[in-house]
Amino acid sequence: MTTLTPYLTVSDGAAALDFYRRAFGAEIVERYDADGRLAHATLTIDGAILFLSDEFPRFGAVSPTTVGGSTAAVVLGVADPDATCAAAVAAGATEDRPVELDGSGHRSGWVVDPFGHRWNIRTE
Amino acid sequence: MTTLTPYLTVSDGAAALDFYRRAFGAEIVERYDADGRLAHATLTIDGAILFLSDEFPRFGAVSPTTVGGSTAAVVLGVADPDATCAAAVAAGATEDRPVELDGSGHRSGWVVDPFGHRWNIRTE
Repeated sequence: MTTLTPYLTVSDGAAALDFYRRAFGAEIVERYDADGRLAHATLTIDGAILFLSDEFPRFGAVSPTTVGGSTAAVVLGVADPDATCAAAVAAGATEDRPVELDGSGHRSGWVVDPFGHRWNIRTE
Repeated sequence: MTTLTPYLTVSDGAAALDFYRRAFGAEIVERYDADGRLAHATLTIDGAILFLSDEFPRFGAVSPTTVGGSTAAVVLGVADPDATCAAAVAAGATEDRPVELDGSGHRSGWVVDPFGHRWNIRTE
């Protein structure tokens, strides 16, 4: 089985772990810290996997707040995008485009999290 | 069912579609062009979904070649990472870390594609 999983770089891994827990109910499966920084974490959001680390510029891993944009968004497919977007905003994300029916029949909205990552939250 | 899917931003969407086909056998499921640019594409790699578009700076979507790093890597889980890494390099990717057995028991390597996206190619 072939899988594709996002691996996000953030400016503050510890704070991001807390935010993704509050915003999306993310649970920590693995966490490795080194020199006071988040070297690697594996999270699950209702069973879906997400990887996370602090910045490692020598490997080209930079954070959106450092570079002023993000080079990959995350598409989060959920049963109720209205509720998930509202929870993300309540946890500190910024609404970018409100949830509405898009051209392909999904309810779909966009938020930007406090670490600069763009999330498209939509029905499958 | 909750899903998480990477949505990559690239500097040249048409070239990236061709590269991901040659490197990973990606097939185009949907493609929308607008004003000569890739507005959105849905690809599948052996059934796993990947989204792709050109840069849209007004939405914060910038490419790794523009910002000099990537804010999210893609973890590609495959049966034979040695073969997949070799195919990616043959198609034009650069090996960053060779495939080897990592601490968690995966065979795992890293390549950087011609658009600056970092790929961790490993067994599941």
